[in-house]
Amino acid sequence: MRAVDLIRIKREGGKLSSEEIEFLIDGYVAGRIPDYQVAAWLMAVYYKGMNAAELATLTQSMMNSGDVYDLADIPGVKADKHSTGGVGDKVSLMLAPLAAACGAYVPMISGRGLGHTGGTLDKLEAIPGFSTNLSAARFKRQLKKVGLAMGGQTEKFVPADRKLYSLRDVTCTVESIPLISASIMSKKLAEGCDVLVLDVKTGSGAFMRKQADAETLARTMVAIGRKMGRKVSAMITDMSQPLGCAVGNANEVVESIEVLKGGGPADLVAVTRALTARMLVLGKLAKNDKDAGAQMDKAIASGAALEKFREMVETQGGDARCVDHPEKILPQAKKKKVITAPRPGYLTEFNTLNVGLGACVMGAGRAVVADKIDPGVGLWVRARVGDKITKGQPIYEVYYNDAKRFASAKTLLEDSFKISSKRARAPRLIRKSEV
Amino acid sequence: MRAVDLIRIKREGGKLSSEEIEFLIDGYVAGRIPDYQVAAWLMAVYYKGMNAAELATLTQSMMNSGDVYDLADIPGVKADKHSTGGVGDKVSLMLAPLAAACGAYVPMISGRGLGHTGGTLDKLEAIPGFSTNLSAARFKRQLKKVGLAMGGQTEKFVPADRKLYSLRDVTCTVESIPLISASIMSKKLAEGCDVLVLDVKTGSGAFMRKQADAETLARTMVAIGRKMGRKVSAMITDMSQPLGCAVGNANEVVESIEVLKGGGPADLVAVTRALTARMLVLGKLAKNDKDAGAQMDKAIASGAALEKFREMVETQGGDARCVDHPEKILPQAKKKKVITAPRPGYLTEFNTLNVGLGACVMGAGRAVVADKIDPGVGLWVRARVGDKITKGQPIYEVYYNDAKRFASAKTLLEDSFKISSKRARAPRLIRKSEV
Repeated sequence: MRAVDLIRIKREGGKLSSEEIEFLIDGYVAGRIPDYQVAAWLMAVYYKGMNAAELATLTQSMMNSGDVYDLADIPGVKADKHSTGGVGDKVSLMLAPLAAACGAYVPMISGRGLGHTGGTLDKLEAIPGFSTNLSAARFKRQLKKVGLAMGGQTEKFVPADRKLYSLRDVTCTVESIPLISASIMSKKLAEGCDVLVLDVKTGSGAFMRKQADAETLARTMVAIGRKMGRKVSAMITDMSQPLGCAVGNANEVVESIEVLKGGGPADLVAVTRALTARMLVLGKLAKNDKDAGAQMDKAIASGAALEKFREMVETQGGDARCVDHPEKILPQAKKKKVITAPRPGYLTEFNTLNVGLGACVMGAGRAVVADKIDPGVGLWVRARVGDKITKGQPIYEVYYNDAKRFASAKTLLEDSFKISSKRARAPRLIRKSEV
Repeated sequence: MRAVDLIRIKREGGKLSSEEIEFLIDGYVAGRIPDYQVAAWLMAVYYKGMNAAELATLTQSMMNSGDVYDLADIPGVKADKHSTGGVGDKVSLMLAPLAAACGAYVPMISGRGLGHTGGTLDKLEAIPGFSTNLSAARFKRQLKKVGLAMGGQTEKFVPADRKLYSLRDVTCTVESIPLISASIMSKKLAEGCDVLVLDVKTGSGAFMRKQADAETLARTMVAIGRKMGRKVSAMITDMSQPLGCAVGNANEVVESIEVLKGGGPADLVAVTRALTARMLVLGKLAKNDKDAGAQMDKAIASGAALEKFREMVETQGGDARCVDHPEKILPQAKKKKVITAPRPGYLTEFNTLNVGLGACVMGAGRAVVADKIDPGVGLWVRARVGDKITKGQPIYEVYYNDAKRFASAKTLLEDSFKISSKRARAPRLIRKSEV
């Protein structure tokens, strides 16, 4: 078998066999197939796509390039969620303890923020002492004991994805639904979960701006997961405005704790509950959405979900007093400015990308991998699409440490919402409840 | 400027500026831009193409990556021909001395055979002692003195093409009309010719099987050459059967000498004369085709063309006695077999690719660059499409040295022509006289 012949097949829009895809991926990871051949192949895939069978093999080959967590000796249902990312999307921080409190085991391997979206690991690391650097053994031990573990990728975790992603990044082959799908699914399935719920976001703050693209991505990932024998379901949710109010790291933890205590913004609560319910139903831990809802109500009211969160924080070395006194324990930036409405009217639209970038330039995110996060900076979004707005009404409360960085953020944030004299409808939060 | 952004522009079907293309090519040749980025870019070009302005810049950047021959101090018209290659295509061997005898200067830098087609250098090297390894200075000196020089590419000759071609070969991006055009034209224009005639072949023995593709390639190359200020013209000629009778190396030299002496097969003579006439007219060395024809008649009848050939052979170190006694001086394989018609009828079709491959497996060509040529092997094609054939009539006379290799060739050759009871027309030799 020769790589050049496999490039030719894909270039002509043909289908590669399982053996051929394995030959490519195994060869690339082992260094037998050079970057330039894989680069040409990736570009051919960008144009010609891959079918379901090819994608399942690609995902499996990538998954098998490193450690695959075997959770067979944990007796319950192993369920996880993945979001394609957005601004203010802190759902994982509530969903994992909530699902665990309802009887699921949640083995969650997350990533860091890059670009305008935040990353779960960065948010958790806003908690003093919290470690996301868990070995496979420690991860599994904690999962068994606590019911949830939230860690980062170790060096041995899906190295094919790391290598392919780096190459895609410099060869302009990132924006390919098959390649995105295989990348996400190879990592999620390597965690060893039986149940996976996908939250594919769409709107001005999402990677998939258009709902049709989000649906294609969702369908592609669901097909891969099912072909690989897992229970997978996807939901399309709104990212035309930030989810919840908090955008940053420490402040997103604060808001998550509020939700776990029964409070928090309605949109955040609704998305978190919908995704958690799907996990529970899919994992047969709840009969239906109603049953799942009742279980979640109980887990919140009893404090069981909050306790799961506390237990995770403690087990992962974090200062668990943040659960009771978030304002005392979690870092908070020193300076505050409010960005207000320049005129009265209706809030018709967010440029959510700009909101994310605004937080990012203050230090909440990274432009390049080496950038350091400032966990205390961020903003609270104080208005929603559809709201009637008076002149001077706060739109954002911004917390920052560096005046120059704030100045950059201000420009972005002032250009991140539209006020019009015409009434606007609030966007539908769950754009499609099942794909 | 970043290579990844230029890949993106091309990936989306956009146009690159001159500065952007120069950045890519200069960066690649200098090693600043890695293979994998160029590989992805090449694949994007494969799908999205390049416009005339992009191609002119690409060709120019490639041309300028190494030595460009400056022939300004040679007072006459510098004219050359390029053929896209075929089976039995030995036109250069006659055209160059014929044009030189009519007053042109022919600076011909040629390639070697690879795949099923022969290469001019390999044919010339069938002449004992003949050297195609001419330094730029020696090449120019000979051109000035003799009126023609036929050499190979030196290390410093269009290194961008060598590097890009090697990469295209392993990334399956060879079959791209813009990339083929830039590759050919960068080399032809680096020779310093003012006039260039392109012979784009089509049919079963050509790289462009379909005439429409041949025409697109021809138009693309003509546009590049004209944008770069040269006089360029292209002809589409037939390669649905071998050109002339000889296929091999030494035997193609034999046949070329026959033509220079006023003999030779009619099709070979016609194509050679048409291309030479185009060069003379384009270079204003002849008023029109009729005038060119008269000049060529004279050059042949007087022996002037043959003398130019002899002079070139002598100057390049070859045994010039081959001109008078080709059968004594040129190598000839030891064994001969005849492949005959298995039934009577009409010869309707050649699989000319198989004819080329048949010669190649006997040692007339290379499967890989390292293969050694056997100059004495080859075949004479003894029938043409349209001929009425009797059973047992010779189709090929095959000269070989190795029985095993002949056996492979035999299988290919026996499967390289069709005899039918239905009459067939001879193909039109010049498919399109000007593109």
